[in-house]
Amino acid sequence: MKLTKEQAQEIKDQQSQENKTKRVTAPELEKILYEAIPVLDHGFIRVVDYMGDDTSIVQAARVSYGKGTKKISTDSGLIKYLMRHWHSTPFEMCEIKYHVKLPIFIARQWIRHRTANVNEYSARYSILDKEFYLPAKENLAAQSQSNRQGRGDLIGGEQAIKVLEILKSDAEKTYSNYETMLNERYDGTVINENNLGLARELARMNLTLNTYTQWYWKIDLLNLMNFLRLRADEHAQYEIRAYADAMLETVKKWVPITYEAFMDYRVGGTEVSSKGKIIIQKLIKGEKVSIEDSGLSKREWNELMIAFDLKDKVI
Amino acid sequence: MKLTKEQAQEIKDQQSQENKTKRVTAPELEKILYEAIPVLDHGFIRVVDYMGDDTSIVQAARVSYGKGTKKISTDSGLIKYLMRHWHSTPFEMCEIKYHVKLPIFIARQWIRHRTANVNEYSARYSILDKEFYLPAKENLAAQSQSNRQGRGDLIGGEQAIKVLEILKSDAEKTYSNYETMLNERYDGTVINENNLGLARELARMNLTLNTYTQWYWKIDLLNLMNFLRLRADEHAQYEIRAYADAMLETVKKWVPITYEAFMDYRVGGTEVSSKGKIIIQKLIKGEKVSIEDSGLSKREWNELMIAFDLKDKVI
Amino acid sequence: MKLTKEQAQEIKDQQSQENKTKRVTAPELEKILYEAIPVLDHGFIRVVDYMGDDTSIVQAARVSYGKGTKKISTDSGLIKYLMRHWHSTPFEMCEIKYHVKLPIFIARQWIRHRTANVNEYSARYSILDKEFYLPAKENLAAQSQSNRQGRGDLIGGEQAIKVLEILKSDAEKTYSNYETMLNERYDGTVINENNLGLARELARMNLTLNTYTQWYWKIDLLNLMNFLRLRADEHAQYEIRAYADAMLETVKKWVPITYEAFMDYRVGGTEVSSKGKIIIQKLIKGEKVSIEDSGLSKREWNELMIAFDLKDKVI
Amino acid sequence: MKLTKEQAQEIKDQQSQENKTKRVTAPELEKILYEAIPVLDHGFIRVVDYMGDDTSIVQAARVSYGKGTKKISTDSGLIKYLMRHWHSTPFEMCEIKYHVKLPIFIARQWIRHRTANVNEYSARYSILDKEFYLPAKENLAAQSQSNRQGRGDLIGGEQAIKVLEILKSDAEKTYSNYETMLNERYDGTVINENNLGLARELARMNLTLNTYTQWYWKIDLLNLMNFLRLRADEHAQYEIRAYADAMLETVKKWVPITYEAFMDYRVGGTEVSSKGKIIIQKLIKGEKVSIEDSGLSKREWNELMIAFDLKDKVI
Repeated sequence: MKLTKEQAQEIKDQQSQENKTKRVTAPELEKILYEAIPVLDHGFIRVVDYMGDDTSIVQAARVSYGKGTKKISTDSGLIKYLMRHWHSTPFEMCEIKYHVKLPIFIARQWIRHRTANVNEYSARYSILDKEFYLPAKENLAAQSQSNRQGRGDLIGGEQAIKVLEILKSDAEKTYSNYETMLNERYDGTVINENNLGLARELARMNLTLNTYTQWYWKIDLLNLMNFLRLRADEHAQYEIRAYADAMLETVKKWVPITYEAFMDYRVGGTEVSSKGKIIIQKLIKGEKVSIEDSGLSKREWNELMIAFDLKDKVI
Repeated sequence: MKLTKEQAQEIKDQQSQENKTKRVTAPELEKILYEAIPVLDHGFIRVVDYMGDDTSIVQAARVSYGKGTKKISTDSGLIKYLMRHWHSTPFEMCEIKYHVKLPIFIARQWIRHRTANVNEYSARYSILDKEFYLPAKENLAAQSQSNRQGRGDLIGGEQAIKVLEILKSDAEKTYSNYETMLNERYDGTVINENNLGLARELARMNLTLNTYTQWYWKIDLLNLMNFLRLRADEHAQYEIRAYADAMLETVKKWVPITYEAFMDYRVGGTEVSSKGKIIIQKLIKGEKVSIEDSGLSKREWNELMIAFDLKDKVI
Repeated sequence: MKLTKEQAQEIKDQQSQENKTKRVTAPELEKILYEAIPVLDHGFIRVVDYMGDDTSIVQAARVSYGKGTKKISTDSGLIKYLMRHWHSTPFEMCEIKYHVKLPIFIARQWIRHRTANVNEYSARYSILDKEFYLPAKENLAAQSQSNRQGRGDLIGGEQAIKVLEILKSDAEKTYSNYETMLNERYDGTVINENNLGLARELARMNLTLNTYTQWYWKIDLLNLMNFLRLRADEHAQYEIRAYADAMLETVKKWVPITYEAFMDYRVGGTEVSSKGKIIIQKLIKGEKVSIEDSGLSKREWNELMIAFDLKDKVI
Repeated sequence: MKLTKEQAQEIKDQQSQENKTKRVTAPELEKILYEAIPVLDHGFIRVVDYMGDDTSIVQAARVSYGKGTKKISTDSGLIKYLMRHWHSTPFEMCEIKYHVKLPIFIARQWIRHRTANVNEYSARYSILDKEFYLPAKENLAAQSQSNRQGRGDLIGGEQAIKVLEILKSDAEKTYSNYETMLNERYDGTVINENNLGLARELARMNLTLNTYTQWYWKIDLLNLMNFLRLRADEHAQYEIRAYADAMLETVKKWVPITYEAFMDYRVGGTEVSSKGKIIIQKLIKGEKVSIEDSGLSKREWNELMIAFDLKDKVI
């Protein structure tokens, strides 16, 4: 990640604000407000605004006149209860806003979550930055043989070098041609005074999907947790997981009690189907179980065994 | 509106907070934060939290690193442009949260706006306050003869007195029976130690629709303006308009530039159909127009004449 | 439930339609299309339209050019997989529309699910039917002592009789006064030719919350399952559960494969927190567990024991 | 647009279905159901399912037991009234589903409309088709000088040839390298038996933004009209307008009465601000107006003049 001098200064200016407010504040989150937290090679997330804290959830659940807090232990019990029983609306009462820089192919995955507000940098209006995502070698994985939408073994040696060369040279080549068609460099200098520049809304189609874009993204805490549950999961694509992991840290600073309940019930928890429950019950009673009698498919069986770490318990 | 001593104290405590924040603040809105602004006979609205101000809209529209402000005049021009051209996403970047006390029949109208977050006081869990909406005499209108969903002339004299008597006595009677079934008064005293109380989720069905309820209601600025455009309109039911009018004042304190553009383009503006445009063009050229040649229905024609205050211009 | 002669005829006319279409159809659902299925004492649900069937989910998941079906067994496996892994968008590709008659206090619970399209019968515009919900004796439960938002023991004898009397007479009294204020009976006859009728939008406030209303309600399959999961649950209020149960039957006729997966993974399944997983693992290994060492609250512990039917296994 | 033999056959099979249904049907839409309507050089839209017709809007607005139709003239009057007064919920009662093939940079614009259901072809799971959008010469416009997000004069001669060469060769080059990294051609043949293929979720990042993707897209009629109003507008980018125009034709076949009202009130209509109304009123009275006294900015003034075709009327 590299910020221009102007960008770094603008961020500093924001951070030096010291306003008075009667609203609740989240002191740990205030400490990193506006800070650009690096993700991948050129990306970042920045928390640029927020509304509410753990007490706001309690306050809304009780529809109270005051702050909503009785004692921290009571609040914590209520938040856990709400999380366990899938209460949704109290968690919607907190809101957060991020500024994110991310590769376009990840932006396309991300935007599938519709319950957020988004303003993306417009390539109809402006010229995109000359920055592309190039994976680190340790993330250069082959297509998985067992899972059609996952990664398998690492690619190494000559082949890895070639892949990285392709990604780099194609991104640079297409970007350079983007400038040629625009008749303008990314820094604003005109290339040929006698030529017209192709409309920006057209020229952008020549860029590769690893080009970085950026957006403002605002979401309530409930929907943020839904997003993080899917995208911080080990089955998510590594590149979006990197963003989700960085965001999880900001949630921890913002609403620590909710974060803890979320990690316990959602991230670390598991679901068991009605058929799966019968297997578990038999195992507890010491009865024999077998995939044949279970009514589960092989895949389901394996997922259940993995969830409870049971591979050697049952043959 | 009457607050209990405890409620008044809780509000005072919230107002005495003085927190430091790096977030942007809206100084005029801070002044009335948490304050219960009376609406109707027992209702109120209170702003209990907010996110962003006018500069947040500009900042998001530009996807900028800094505060988004260049000069106030530039910001103002951009906000007007966005409003005029129905840009939606930058206005979604501001968020506000209200605590509202309102009669149930108005709550039912209000909740039809789905793009908000709501936590309502639960009558499965708690006992509702003993408060009912009784219209003031100057709002006791007859059914309109011309508009099937509007009000006509005022009702007066004996009939008005009778209506108010009915509303008052039926609300009191059904509330008293609500307590009887619950075997508990609204202040928590048990009525008959030997009886069970009917489940609250059942007993509530005996209450009338003018009973007051309350909720926390959180919404972004775009959707708030959509709500206010419909509900502060003269065709809206008086009782919900009273709430919308009070909320408009809070918007003015929160985002004054956006408020001004909203009043000019949305509230004070009008729409003209393609057929209506032809009429206007003819009128400007001094040509004769008639409803017969216009292709408009009588109702449409009247709406157009009213919008441009043209009733005596055309016969 | 009683339908007027005209209503019964209108329903019959709809059912006698026989149109040709190239769209997929759900033959079992067609059989009950438009039929008013009774719920509670005067309510009903009617399926009035639908889009898609099980194959539509498969088709969308594959973004296929054709019908999406390969073999039923393959489709079924894919649908189960999608359900198990919380894929959401393919289930959104089916849509259903209901006409529902229901008491207002249940309508208020129902409408909290925002991801549906609704048109409610307007009491600003029309006069509501003279129909109120009166619980059957076997549903007249006392407030639960252990669960602040649930029901406990049945209320019987004198007290039950009194409760039913109150509910009936208060509903009838307030409805009669509603007519008086409107100066019009529910059948349209004017009461006093010399009087004005109070505006409908005002008069309605005198009705009790057990008055029946009705609406058209349209929702996609994913959000319908979210609704049913919560509202067909034993913790849901009995009165809304009655509707959810009737709707579950229509889902079974509409998308039988999805229905089966839904019952297995959602309705019959359970969730286990990360702390709960450790307890289960210990139980399977035959180790001793105790609430003290578990990190669970008493309530959580009980919920886990109930989910796996383990009450006598652990002391 | 070219379909493979299999795709053409699958479409034919769908079109040869003849199912019986009690649902309402839209006969004109049935005629083109499933048909791939070409858009741009390789794209298409196909209507693959729909729910409801014009009568469904009327039925929902009236919450009726029967079909909702009285007479066509009455229905038409009601639909116009609903459109004129921005009633939204009755139009949400119709639903349509499209299969769309479109360039990625247009898909990114399109997806900004969040109120639809989407299933996109997964490039994590599958290999994208070898098809890229190349603009026709008559669409190769320069960046507008006056409007920062629009097109100006056409680019011609040598420069146009060069632009098209760049777009074609860069797309082919990056696609070929995509295959190299995947170690697999688009037709499934393996390139080098000794190599691993890079994970698809990574390899895709090398593709350019004019590569075609495809999705199933389902939306209700209200939100479809919101989409079309913005995207069939002359300020929309030509490439998305081409899709919107094709979709408008399908709306006309589906709900002809609604289509007509939409064209009159939304597409052909205009909005006038409160300041603009004063100008219009003065013009009708034959009074002089000037930009200086109007309170309008130059841009606003021009927009008003254009809307009413008044450029020579006022100097």
